[in-house]
Amino acid sequence: MLRIIFLLSLLFALSNASVQDFCVANLKRAETPAGYPCIRPIHVKASDFVFSLGTPGNTTNIISAAVTPGFVAQFPALNGLGISTARLDLAPKGVIPMHTHPGASEVLFVLDGSITAGFISSANSVYVQTLKPGQVMVFPQGLLHFQINAGKSAAVAFVTFSSASPGLQILDFALFANSLSTELVSATTFLDPKVIKTLKGSHRLCLLAKTKYKHSP
Amino acid sequence: MLRIIFLLSLLFALSNASVQDFCVANLKRAETPAGYPCIRPIHVKASDFVFSLGTPGNTTNIISAAVTPGFVAQFPALNGLGISTARLDLAPKGVIPMHTHPGASEVLFVLDGSITAGFISSANSVYVQTLKPGQVMVFPQGLLHFQINAGKSAAVAFVTFSSASPGLQILDFALFANSLSTELVSATTFLDPKVIKTLKGSHRLCLLAKTKYKHSP
Amino acid sequence: MLRIIFLLSLLFALSNASVQDFCVANLKRAETPAGYPCIRPIHVKASDFVFSLGTPGNTTNIISAAVTPGFVAQFPALNGLGISTARLDLAPKGVIPMHTHPGASEVLFVLDGSITAGFISSANSVYVQTLKPGQVMVFPQGLLHFQINAGKSAAVAFVTFSSASPGLQILDFALFANSLSTELVSATTFLDPKVIKTLKGSHRLCLLAKTKYKHSP
Amino acid sequence: MLRIIFLLSLLFALSNASVQDFCVANLKRAETPAGYPCIRPIHVKASDFVFSLGTPGNTTNIISAAVTPGFVAQFPALNGLGISTARLDLAPKGVIPMHTHPGASEVLFVLDGSITAGFISSANSVYVQTLKPGQVMVFPQGLLHFQINAGKSAAVAFVTFSSASPGLQILDFALFANSLSTELVSATTFLDPKVIKTLKGSHRLCLLAKTKYKHSP
Amino acid sequence: MLRIIFLLSLLFALSNASVQDFCVANLKRAETPAGYPCIRPIHVKASDFVFSLGTPGNTTNIISAAVTPGFVAQFPALNGLGISTARLDLAPKGVIPMHTHPGASEVLFVLDGSITAGFISSANSVYVQTLKPGQVMVFPQGLLHFQINAGKSAAVAFVTFSSASPGLQILDFALFANSLSTELVSATTFLDPKVIKTLKGSHRLCLLAKTKYKHSP
Amino acid sequence: MLRIIFLLSLLFALSNASVQDFCVANLKRAETPAGYPCIRPIHVKASDFVFSLGTPGNTTNIISAAVTPGFVAQFPALNGLGISTARLDLAPKGVIPMHTHPGASEVLFVLDGSITAGFISSANSVYVQTLKPGQVMVFPQGLLHFQINAGKSAAVAFVTFSSASPGLQILDFALFANSLSTELVSATTFLDPKVIKTLKGSHRLCLLAKTKYKHSP
Repeated sequence: MLRIIFLLSLLFALSNASVQDFCVANLKRAETPAGYPCIRPIHVKASDFVFSLGTPGNTTNIISAAVTPGFVAQFPALNGLGISTARLDLAPKGVIPMHTHPGASEVLFVLDGSITAGFISSANSVYVQTLKPGQVMVFPQGLLHFQINAGKSAAVAFVTFSSASPGLQILDFALFANSLSTELVSATTFLDPKVIKTLKGSHRLCLLAKTKYKHSP
Repeated sequence: MLRIIFLLSLLFALSNASVQDFCVANLKRAETPAGYPCIRPIHVKASDFVFSLGTPGNTTNIISAAVTPGFVAQFPALNGLGISTARLDLAPKGVIPMHTHPGASEVLFVLDGSITAGFISSANSVYVQTLKPGQVMVFPQGLLHFQINAGKSAAVAFVTFSSASPGLQILDFALFANSLSTELVSATTFLDPKVIKTLKGSHRLCLLAKTKYKHSP
Repeated sequence: MLRIIFLLSLLFALSNASVQDFCVANLKRAETPAGYPCIRPIHVKASDFVFSLGTPGNTTNIISAAVTPGFVAQFPALNGLGISTARLDLAPKGVIPMHTHPGASEVLFVLDGSITAGFISSANSVYVQTLKPGQVMVFPQGLLHFQINAGKSAAVAFVTFSSASPGLQILDFALFANSLSTELVSATTFLDPKVIKTLKGSHRLCLLAKTKYKHSP
Repeated sequence: MLRIIFLLSLLFALSNASVQDFCVANLKRAETPAGYPCIRPIHVKASDFVFSLGTPGNTTNIISAAVTPGFVAQFPALNGLGISTARLDLAPKGVIPMHTHPGASEVLFVLDGSITAGFISSANSVYVQTLKPGQVMVFPQGLLHFQINAGKSAAVAFVTFSSASPGLQILDFALFANSLSTELVSATTFLDPKVIKTLKGSHRLCLLAKTKYKHSP
Repeated sequence: MLRIIFLLSLLFALSNASVQDFCVANLKRAETPAGYPCIRPIHVKASDFVFSLGTPGNTTNIISAAVTPGFVAQFPALNGLGISTARLDLAPKGVIPMHTHPGASEVLFVLDGSITAGFISSANSVYVQTLKPGQVMVFPQGLLHFQINAGKSAAVAFVTFSSASPGLQILDFALFANSLSTELVSATTFLDPKVIKTLKGSHRLCLLAKTKYKHSP
Repeated sequence: MLRIIFLLSLLFALSNASVQDFCVANLKRAETPAGYPCIRPIHVKASDFVFSLGTPGNTTNIISAAVTPGFVAQFPALNGLGISTARLDLAPKGVIPMHTHPGASEVLFVLDGSITAGFISSANSVYVQTLKPGQVMVFPQGLLHFQINAGKSAAVAFVTFSSASPGLQILDFALFANSLSTELVSATTFLDPKVIKTLKGSHRLCLLAKTKYKHSP
């Protein structure tokens, strides 16, 4: 069986082969449309391929929910692999408000509790289901969708996306928590300016809070 | 120069080559994730590659605007070519309300009038510009965006998409014009149920109108 | 706020737009390189987007493990969405033997127990880690990898793939459980023909068993 | 309605998310096969998403026509978005000579005047149409095509491509306006060397002119 | 070592998995933008993955050359695999005239003889090299290129393409061997109408010949 | 025919167009998921597009075979073009052992001698054929495959891949020639630890040899 001393020459012939099995992101370098430049394979460790979603997010907030992302920015080994991940925690009455992922489809797997989830299609059909642990639901790319705790106990879900950088656009944020004028929001959503101002007002508190938080590490 | 009688043998050798320059859609056959099956090249005419966006859409409606799509469903030659088109007409005060295209980036070219257009990024930044004729604006894939007539005369724009089937999700429709319950809309958008019911009420009239229209050819 | 009666004309103008948000597979039709033809949207139900991985696989077998796939063949709504899913059950000492997915990267999320997982790169580096609940590991496309129960209790994991049809090639199957001759296996793996015959022998029992199972519903 | 103070914690959890909605090109950095590296989102302004094609190109030249491109090199916000744009001006008798775009399909929208446009397929079929304002024609990727002013007044068209970097290969340039020898052109096109030399001669004047122009700003 | 009786349960769990390793084309069914529908795996034989390019093409024609394609239409196993093949035979003085492949890059490997090959870039640079046996040249997608026998003996090359359906547009054919009018050719290429008519005349003979050939099996 | 002095203005209008016909790799810069950054077109020479596979690999080794790759790392002009190449030399009894290319399909063209080649599908079917000169075989992406000299003389083949960076994972290397423990190999392949140790032992000699070789130029 010694006849394997061999692979030798093969080994050398191939030692210069370009091998782009993976491309762990160098987050300090500028992104390209296809992702970040890779760190050199020699600096890649086994632990780079592992990420922890084991710690529940903090749900003591108004939505009683938390999203913990494992996108390329948090989990650089995903760079170029076309997949990413996140953890959802929903306290009782918790809700992940209406949102889209502009660049990816999503699969949600319920670990604990019960979740009512749904999406709306381009054809304006509504697809809503209440899920229990062990059930999986898929949300097609770019469509508005949401998740709500449908039970009385905390709910936990693990989600994955068909992109290392799925993006996330939360509807309320997009409409009420930025520099978009009340006039433009009203004109493009048909919401009453008063309604918009109230929602924007609530958000102003957020901005204050945010500023404060930024000063702490 | 007669030496060209030649290409002959070449011609025959290649006459069986698969040539998928284009794939004009056979809309009667089931779609696949990559588009429709092709009609046979022998049935394709030059006029299949032409589509008319020359007729203004009817803007005598509440949004004072109209979208005339030239997607693969209207313009089957686009099938598989990764591009499609539409025409926007905005009467004075007209607005294309907040919407997304889940599967494509968009380029808008202003022909007449003045248009205020904008989009909101995943990072919640707002990009709004007022455009005059000859100006082009690009809207990245999947993000909320809108167009408003910014002048006193009618505005016209020609838009193209980076997909033969860009999709279109209009925010107001998705929230207020389908079977999604007031309770779910409220829980996922933080809008007051009363506000939602009013908006849904307006839409009920649409449905009636729609039904009526369906009976006419 | 009644000014929304409107969307009317918009609704009609767009009603013919091709909307390929999703393409639930018609498994009875021939596949294409991009997936199955779609069933008509009118036949799609909300429940089509849900799949259950809640039932543990049967691990009373020699590998003390089970894989329950949620690929496009089991979960047709994934067709064209570039993502799929599976559940792994590993009884104590259970092992998912060395294998590859020719068409997808994989993300594994540990639900219960402890799992030692690893992959080998094209550059012949080994990346092995022992994971506990809540940890995620990513396996780049096409590389040999494995999962082993590293604890004394049952382990459960949820995996997703960056393709609706990731494929699965189990090394032992590929070498010892098909019509590939002992001579060819020996020549291409440098394993002793005796070793190969023993392994093939074991498999023969499988085939028998398989035949039997097929007769029962 | 104050219950929205909330989105707070969500905001913070996501603030590190990688969001690659867009990737405005940093043209000073080396390109990659997927496009240029991005400038940092913080340096992106709303006006970066706007480009002007409002100024007619100068058509006082032998082809009586002008192409004004809005590709990624001129309009860096297109980087990675899979779409680009250009303006065509054709004075009376103007012609955009036979050319290809190696990396994109093209959609042409006629604004003013009348244009005869056509392409030739791999199967050697000819698809020619005369277009009037408001008509759109699509040219599949990589095929030889042309546009000619078909009327007596100036014609203007707006075109878009299914790539941020469509490329452009003008047949006459490729054959007669570079270092390709008369011998090779003759051998590969079956044109008479005399004909080729005349055409090359005309081009020599161009080169002279070009050199002169280069010296002026 | 009997412990492998096992894989059993695994086998059954996976037996329904969708496995789209390959998709041998069913050429009788309509193509889609991603290729042909697949024949059922049960009907696929090992020999389907083999194609013969061993027979020299007939070079007794005016170009003293022959192209024998192994595209998806001739070699259906390539369907969806993103690769195809062809054989070039060039008798002394043989030439593969100026042409493009709209949908693929090309690699050429010289087996016998000497070949002068070249391409012209979008930036109008010329890249010409004379190759001997064992040398490989790459031609980027969609660009005009050619191959000429540079020696005194027959030359043979094997080429592959980065698509199962690369397409082929031969310049002389596109300009002179179809229904494109002399007027349009002249206007878009700046060739003298007389030159064009002569070239078209030569081709008329081809058409006659072609018609005749068609009647024989 | 002087009317071509013309293309002038066109030339200038387009001189800034982004033209990414090719992207010759700058191997000194960090890779991205889509390949290497490009060197500037002005530094690209015609000879960059040529690579030599004319020299037989050294087959005086245990496998009596050699692989000479022409991947992007050896042939930088392939960067971004989706194709690469290699040469196989098999002395009598030579074998390219069981391996996969995680990122590409492969086409093999037999130049000399006779080769028995095969692959195993995800569905565990075996596709083996014996090829003679002029025959082509295709191996779908990511599947285990092998090539064996089936004759008494040397065999030579030219292969191409549907990626500039196909990767290469040799089964014996992955299992026996790295830091993967005997325990893990045994657990995941069902091979006897003794068998594994013997194979690992043979490889130790390789490593020694490799070290020695490294010191020589």
